[in-house]
Amino acid sequence: MKTVVTAGEIVVEIMATRVGQTFLEPGPLIGPFPSGAPAIFIDQVGRLGQPCGMISSVGADDFGTINIERLRASGVDTSAIAVHEGAATGSAFVRYNADGSRNFVYNIAHSACGLMALDGAGEALIERADHVHVMGSSLFSAGAIEVTKTAVERIKARGGTLSFDPNVRPELLADGMREALHWMAARCDVFLPSGAELFLFTRSQVEEDAVAEILAGGCSVVVLKKGSEGAVHYDRAGRTALPAFRAEEVDPTGAGDCFGAGFVCAWLRGEAPADALRLANACGALAVAKKGPMEGTAFRAEIDAFLASQNEVDAA
Amino acid sequence: MKTVVTAGEIVVEIMATRVGQTFLEPGPLIGPFPSGAPAIFIDQVGRLGQPCGMISSVGADDFGTINIERLRASGVDTSAIAVHEGAATGSAFVRYNADGSRNFVYNIAHSACGLMALDGAGEALIERADHVHVMGSSLFSAGAIEVTKTAVERIKARGGTLSFDPNVRPELLADGMREALHWMAARCDVFLPSGAELFLFTRSQVEEDAVAEILAGGCSVVVLKKGSEGAVHYDRAGRTALPAFRAEEVDPTGAGDCFGAGFVCAWLRGEAPADALRLANACGALAVAKKGPMEGTAFRAEIDAFLASQNEVDAA
Repeated sequence: MKTVVTAGEIVVEIMATRVGQTFLEPGPLIGPFPSGAPAIFIDQVGRLGQPCGMISSVGADDFGTINIERLRASGVDTSAIAVHEGAATGSAFVRYNADGSRNFVYNIAHSACGLMALDGAGEALIERADHVHVMGSSLFSAGAIEVTKTAVERIKARGGTLSFDPNVRPELLADGMREALHWMAARCDVFLPSGAELFLFTRSQVEEDAVAEILAGGCSVVVLKKGSEGAVHYDRAGRTALPAFRAEEVDPTGAGDCFGAGFVCAWLRGEAPADALRLANACGALAVAKKGPMEGTAFRAEIDAFLASQNEVDAA
Repeated sequence: MKTVVTAGEIVVEIMATRVGQTFLEPGPLIGPFPSGAPAIFIDQVGRLGQPCGMISSVGADDFGTINIERLRASGVDTSAIAVHEGAATGSAFVRYNADGSRNFVYNIAHSACGLMALDGAGEALIERADHVHVMGSSLFSAGAIEVTKTAVERIKARGGTLSFDPNVRPELLADGMREALHWMAARCDVFLPSGAELFLFTRSQVEEDAVAEILAGGCSVVVLKKGSEGAVHYDRAGRTALPAFRAEEVDPTGAGDCFGAGFVCAWLRGEAPADALRLANACGALAVAKKGPMEGTAFRAEIDAFLASQNEVDAA
């Protein structure tokens, strides 16, 4: 089995409970939830039974502990998550608007995440890895970019692979992030954009042409994440589209990360595009049905049961 | 009227809503509340109608806005509160134990608070000030200590005065804080310890002897804050003790800060010890009756109405 590594932000997430709530007056919240896009991704990878680990750093506080314990319980190697005395674990406050959009207040670059660096445990994890997954949101500082680029260079130099999810949030645009996003896009084997992120790195603004540009640049697979409209897989052999499973959307946070985890695991196991999309869609559907960013990651048995129930729906 | 200035942390506070709740799993919270010990103090000073201002810094986010708007509405000069793009406003998560104690997870020193520095607006505010109030919690970094010491030196050099509330929290002990606490204790005119904080800077561990040591060191007034047991005022003329008003304690956070604000304003106006304690006790009693750190600060009219109602209780 191939080992997957990711590097990036670990945060606690605090969620406003009412649609339309602001952060300009006190209101009901729920949290802390373990979170951070790469953490959600790797938690889902761990729960799928794929060997995996994460490079990150947290503060010596309850918010670091809740994350480390959660990832460990999901089967993630947490040896390269440094715990820094005196630093605060990152945080993300999220509120939901009536139109379905979300707004965030982040503390990442100046949280313990900002102290992310390659130590012995991180070097060893990279040595064991066959695949690295990069979230655009993880390119939040010069230090984080350095760690991530190093992981990509070493793993690719050994014949390993890179998957890249732009995961760009307007609240998180940082100095150097744009160049680092392009650097990742130019090296990735699997590109996993959501919606208009497909066009971040292309001249063309038309789907088929943009995909052709990206595949011509050396990328093997492009998977367009279209939320409730499903997903489309492109490689040099052609196009495979799959509708999403019907799911009652309770909370979209983390669904794209779980989808990516499902796809990457299936792809690393050599599954056919339709099968990989089906697993990815199942991970996404289970994720949106649970409130909380990492609460919707599912173990293999739960995913298999979900897929079996969907087969019955299809057969009916 | 004398102008009061303080410098220190501005944070949002997020409160666990259930007694005994931990931060190791998600649970119900409420927030964000405007907070920070010196911010609560100066908000109460402003609401008492005393000219006042605060030196601090926040991030360019909703959590900075909620604090600045609140202080401004209470009559606090916020011109010396810097707003930093890219920095996160400080935060404090608080949870309540069954024994009445509280635990905090803070992000202060590495938040926007950590960027606190004297700019033109801060210099101008210090120039206008007759009195400076220092919270021990505000001595959280070398930069914060520098700003606070400068304010104290300049205001005292002009014949102004210093009040000092140790307000020490185990979660907040920082490098250099101990020396800075001693530095403030050696220079203050009004010392406002809670409970055992009286003995932080004395050889004696007996109340009357410890007070005598502090008064001998140059301090004019010592006021012991004893929560529901009331307060005791010591100066060279003698001892004045006053019981607390009866109050249903909903949330103790901020009550000591409001008590201090009431006392300092009365003291600056030359009120007699018993009258100053009575105003301070009223501010404390109104503060504990409201949930939220700064929610219990009261305007003069509300305090006068409370005191009038207590006179009726006394007369009955």
